[in-house]
Amino acid sequence: MEEAQCTSLSPPLSLHGQFDGFLWSVAVINPGFCFGVSKLRFGSVLDADPGHGKLPLVSVQDRDHKFLTKAVEEAYRGVECSDGGPFGAVVVRNDEVVVSCHNMVLKHTDPTAHAEVTAIREACKKLGKIELSDCEIYASCEPCPMCFGAVHLSRIKRLVYGAKAEAAIAIGFDDFIADALRGTGYYQKANMEIKKADGNGALLAEQVFEKTKEKFQMY
Amino acid sequence: MEEAQCTSLSPPLSLHGQFDGFLWSVAVINPGFCFGVSKLRFGSVLDADPGHGKLPLVSVQDRDHKFLTKAVEEAYRGVECSDGGPFGAVVVRNDEVVVSCHNMVLKHTDPTAHAEVTAIREACKKLGKIELSDCEIYASCEPCPMCFGAVHLSRIKRLVYGAKAEAAIAIGFDDFIADALRGTGYYQKANMEIKKADGNGALLAEQVFEKTKEKFQMY
Repeated sequence: MEEAQCTSLSPPLSLHGQFDGFLWSVAVINPGFCFGVSKLRFGSVLDADPGHGKLPLVSVQDRDHKFLTKAVEEAYRGVECSDGGPFGAVVVRNDEVVVSCHNMVLKHTDPTAHAEVTAIREACKKLGKIELSDCEIYASCEPCPMCFGAVHLSRIKRLVYGAKAEAAIAIGFDDFIADALRGTGYYQKANMEIKKADGNGALLAEQVFEKTKEKFQMY
Repeated sequence: MEEAQCTSLSPPLSLHGQFDGFLWSVAVINPGFCFGVSKLRFGSVLDADPGHGKLPLVSVQDRDHKFLTKAVEEAYRGVECSDGGPFGAVVVRNDEVVVSCHNMVLKHTDPTAHAEVTAIREACKKLGKIELSDCEIYASCEPCPMCFGAVHLSRIKRLVYGAKAEAAIAIGFDDFIADALRGTGYYQKANMEIKKADGNGALLAEQVFEKTKEKFQMY
């Protein structure tokens, strides 16, 4: 059996009283690193119920409050367990928590075991599918490019996050965190040599796709 | 025991004859998505040995040829095993293969199990450390943003890849592959709602870092 990468949901820490007065900013990602506000999902809920405009908004906030609280609790829990950095993530489907995970980098000796990647991996295993288009993810902090890539690849429909990357950067984390959603770090700042094969080498590597395309199902 | 995510090194496929005439392009990533050629590692090897200028270059090409061949073989092998898409990756340290892996997305029901992520995870486990600054990675195809993020986080010192993303895109893979290294796709094209907590919600999530910074080792 593979070692569990998520903690079970334990009693909540004493954080709830501090969550009063939630405010939210919402964006829908558009091509080319532009942010828009033209497709807000809870906006359409309000439109559908004009007589009770305030109630659905409060409901959505309460719901988001609840799941983000779990993600923040996971962040603290991960540090208490010495599993990794202070990051948590929760995958939700139909108002139910599918998995609640935290950073497992140290525990698993795995630099890819960020909270979001771990949560996506565990949610897919639990649900028995590689796409989570009926799920949302709540992250305690803005996802780094690796994690946002994983969110994109899993087809998760909605991302809610708490802290801006700068809060993590302030205590020493890599500022590339900020690149996925806002592009304010330096994603490719690594002084790493990158070499691309050309000529026959590139041709051979490219032929892999043409030669195998009949043998696997696109996903 | 966790299920192995890498294949062992089996006898090479009959690809070697096609690798004659390798040509290479090399870049060193600089901040701000700029590519430069000012810090070529094998360039300095040539400078240090002016009397035998050709030999080190051929050696480097042969060496890269050998390891990229393994990555391409892994790509084919992964499809033959129905483990996932046609992508392979090899991590090398001191001229020795640490792990040779392929895409395991279907096998593990895990959308994050790309070849590069799998190879990094397995190499870290094998070497017992979360940073691979003494390693190189050979990828059969240009890494997607998630994978490049993983390469960056693992501190791998050198990346060599074969096919341009367009070869994969041509048979139906997500064009976000091309965004990490060249920014020619649409990394954030997903029509996904992204919501950031503000006010007390953001404050509480940001406090995680300040409140835990003494309890974990930065990495």
